[in-house]
Amino acid sequence: MATQAAFLAGFSQLAAQPGRDRAVAVAPARVSVASVGSAKVGVRVGVKAGTAEAAAVAQRRGVRCRASLIEPDGGRLVDLVAPEEGGRRAALRREAAELPHRLRLSRVDKEWVHVLSEGWASPLQGFMREDEFLQTLHFNAIRGQDGRMVNMSVPIVLSVGDAQRRTIQADGATRVALVDERDRPIAVLSDIEIYKHNKEERIARTWGTTAPGLPYVEEAITNAGDWLIGGDLEVIEPIKYNDGLDQYRLSPAQLREEFARRNADAVFAFQLRNPVHNGHALLMTDTRKRLLEMGYKNPVLLLHPLGGFTKADDVPLSWRMKQHEKVLEEGVLNPESTVVAIFPSPMHYAGPTEVQWHAKARINAGANFYIVGRDPAGMSHPTEKRDLYDADHGKKVLSMAPGLERLNILPFKVAAYDTKQKKMDFFDPSRKDDFLFISGTKMRTLAKNRENPPDGFMCPGGWKVLVEYYDSLVPSEGSSKLREPVAA
Amino acid sequence: MATQAAFLAGFSQLAAQPGRDRAVAVAPARVSVASVGSAKVGVRVGVKAGTAEAAAVAQRRGVRCRASLIEPDGGRLVDLVAPEEGGRRAALRREAAELPHRLRLSRVDKEWVHVLSEGWASPLQGFMREDEFLQTLHFNAIRGQDGRMVNMSVPIVLSVGDAQRRTIQADGATRVALVDERDRPIAVLSDIEIYKHNKEERIARTWGTTAPGLPYVEEAITNAGDWLIGGDLEVIEPIKYNDGLDQYRLSPAQLREEFARRNADAVFAFQLRNPVHNGHALLMTDTRKRLLEMGYKNPVLLLHPLGGFTKADDVPLSWRMKQHEKVLEEGVLNPESTVVAIFPSPMHYAGPTEVQWHAKARINAGANFYIVGRDPAGMSHPTEKRDLYDADHGKKVLSMAPGLERLNILPFKVAAYDTKQKKMDFFDPSRKDDFLFISGTKMRTLAKNRENPPDGFMCPGGWKVLVEYYDSLVPSEGSSKLREPVAA
Repeated sequence: MATQAAFLAGFSQLAAQPGRDRAVAVAPARVSVASVGSAKVGVRVGVKAGTAEAAAVAQRRGVRCRASLIEPDGGRLVDLVAPEEGGRRAALRREAAELPHRLRLSRVDKEWVHVLSEGWASPLQGFMREDEFLQTLHFNAIRGQDGRMVNMSVPIVLSVGDAQRRTIQADGATRVALVDERDRPIAVLSDIEIYKHNKEERIARTWGTTAPGLPYVEEAITNAGDWLIGGDLEVIEPIKYNDGLDQYRLSPAQLREEFARRNADAVFAFQLRNPVHNGHALLMTDTRKRLLEMGYKNPVLLLHPLGGFTKADDVPLSWRMKQHEKVLEEGVLNPESTVVAIFPSPMHYAGPTEVQWHAKARINAGANFYIVGRDPAGMSHPTEKRDLYDADHGKKVLSMAPGLERLNILPFKVAAYDTKQKKMDFFDPSRKDDFLFISGTKMRTLAKNRENPPDGFMCPGGWKVLVEYYDSLVPSEGSSKLREPVAA
Repeated sequence: MATQAAFLAGFSQLAAQPGRDRAVAVAPARVSVASVGSAKVGVRVGVKAGTAEAAAVAQRRGVRCRASLIEPDGGRLVDLVAPEEGGRRAALRREAAELPHRLRLSRVDKEWVHVLSEGWASPLQGFMREDEFLQTLHFNAIRGQDGRMVNMSVPIVLSVGDAQRRTIQADGATRVALVDERDRPIAVLSDIEIYKHNKEERIARTWGTTAPGLPYVEEAITNAGDWLIGGDLEVIEPIKYNDGLDQYRLSPAQLREEFARRNADAVFAFQLRNPVHNGHALLMTDTRKRLLEMGYKNPVLLLHPLGGFTKADDVPLSWRMKQHEKVLEEGVLNPESTVVAIFPSPMHYAGPTEVQWHAKARINAGANFYIVGRDPAGMSHPTEKRDLYDADHGKKVLSMAPGLERLNILPFKVAAYDTKQKKMDFFDPSRKDDFLFISGTKMRTLAKNRENPPDGFMCPGGWKVLVEYYDSLVPSEGSSKLREPVAA
């Protein structure tokens, strides 16, 4: 498809590199009328959907052409929540209450139960057994029953301490209950397998460093048990947080329904864990424009902030969601073609390894385009004065990753503040002195100090939310004025 | 093939594990009459070779049925040595002498030039560019031009210091000469690409640890340049060592010719870097027996000691080769069905990551069966009192590795000294007290102390070579009697 190639060339710095045939994974979007996890989905249409022809055939047959969504990994969206009907939930709850072995879930464990239960990690059926864990660490991909590789780059594992491991194994137990911090049953893990948790190796292979101070490691690995327990997961009921944001926590099946309802013929996902500024908005708007130019009739944006564990200096989810609401309210993004939802995964800050997980999970939610920025899932090296990852490795690794061939990877064009036009625009190297780069650090420092960014950097309502957030913090060092750590 | 399945079940501890469908890669051997990198190979036979039918057809047609060898990775065995004919060698030598930029190769670099030049790393055409490097680190596999994955688990890279990097880039050079320690030109690297050498990330992702004291890291990475230079390699003439062992350094093309000459219809490779004892020999003999039972007519063993860099306390190559010669001379292994050759790669001691390289390289040499032991390419953790790798991870990772689906993986059965039978035999757990495990450490300590192992542990001539080796060492601490570090 020449149009598509041209479109992607516009985005891709990768494709523009001379002299080598770089394996930019620009597979054409899979077009098929997918079952979207709901009994309400219309009759399957037996022609290639997403085309004018398909639409016409659909019209003639009198069915509503729902959408052409990318197939989930493994061909079927995994759903590990016990069905509401038939008494299964009550039975499972009873069993969990009576099982002799109960594992207490941490906050991050529970987030992974949520992720697994809704099929974000399809085709995974539960916490990883050793085969899956080893394939994840070594290959960033798992071979399915059908012999095909699906991408899987971060271990989704549950740890157990040595004492509990011994009692489970002494009993020859095959099923254990998973309970929350107040001992309430959440799920049952069955056909269990217990294997060693080599933390050093896991950390080295996932992050490419073992330096102390990695946020996820300190939160979820350092003090975890020395064994891992894998098995098939069955969750008693949908995971809820009761924090006023559950309505944003759409499952992959719900997202697919929503995309179908909107007759989306392309879905482009934007992962973020920061406030949205006008540079992001420009990129998202521009992506939709280009997808329309390619011939898609209704490309829909999945604006998909990460909702699980984040490091202490990231803006908390509730404030980010307020900020994102303002961005839509004030018309920076078009609500008609935007779905805002929360991605329930915790954050690893594992750069090129993690960005694959971020992309793969969005395939399962129906996205066939994925926007990737500079240094995705990156952070500063915890002990050295440099970024932990090369800023370009994320998009390069993503474009070559096994199991992501079906996904169209859209590398970011760099946006910056154009001081002449007084707005965010794509960086133009021919007049580079006109552009001002406003880093996340700079943005946070301005908001902390109640200073305003240049006009046009972020919508006023969104900025106000940020300032309110920093106002709400108790100053940790008794100083109300924060200094910027690095000169702008 | 039921026979094959039964055969593999006999070997495989993996396949025997209950309850899970472990992805043991037991692809049927690819049977095709391969061109073996030589103009002398006979007429291709247009039927499936390696069968009685093929042999009969070959007989009728009057051609010699050479062999049915597994296809090299990428479909063609790479050969990067300038051809003898046509003056190419002289021209390349002249060019290399005149190129303004010359990179001095270390001992290990030169071993990699050797490895690359003969196609052990097919389809690699030279030192890795960044795309290949990133795929190796993250996926242990590289996607070829045809979209298929080939296995590649250890980086084959060449480093360059910052000063030299700057002069090369300032000149816009696209070709550099590679020279040996005495400045003699060895090769030319062309269409070069220079990229950052993040040593920490490379080490963490390759070894799963960044602990100080990894032998390859200290030898070849710690003091290497902060940049890597990839490109297409052309080598002036075959790499020779002039150490009296070059006749054992058969290239993959030469090995394929030898297997064809012997009419091998299965080739099983045994990688080692230690003296051969009768437990190894039992395993190799038993493998041949089982391959014959499966219906292969002439399974040939590739006994393939590693010849490149090894750590200081391993037995040096020249002594190992003397020991292996004795093993054949004294009839422990059958010379008729055994090819002894040197694998020129340096050793990483990177466990499950490296064993994939060891297996992949042997595919390129024509092996379709690979014997894998306990803790392959493993060693003690450099700073903790434990093995660096889980002893079972090597065979598990190998059996699931992308790009190795065509290779039949044969996990070791454990052999030990049977004190009742007074010989090495497969361990029988029902009478486990009869068996004595003689570790490598124990073996070395006995030889160092000129003590004899139990009768039947190793052939007498082979043992004598070991004792001679330790005698030849100048005692490092003035003591002629060495104590065993760990009680037997």
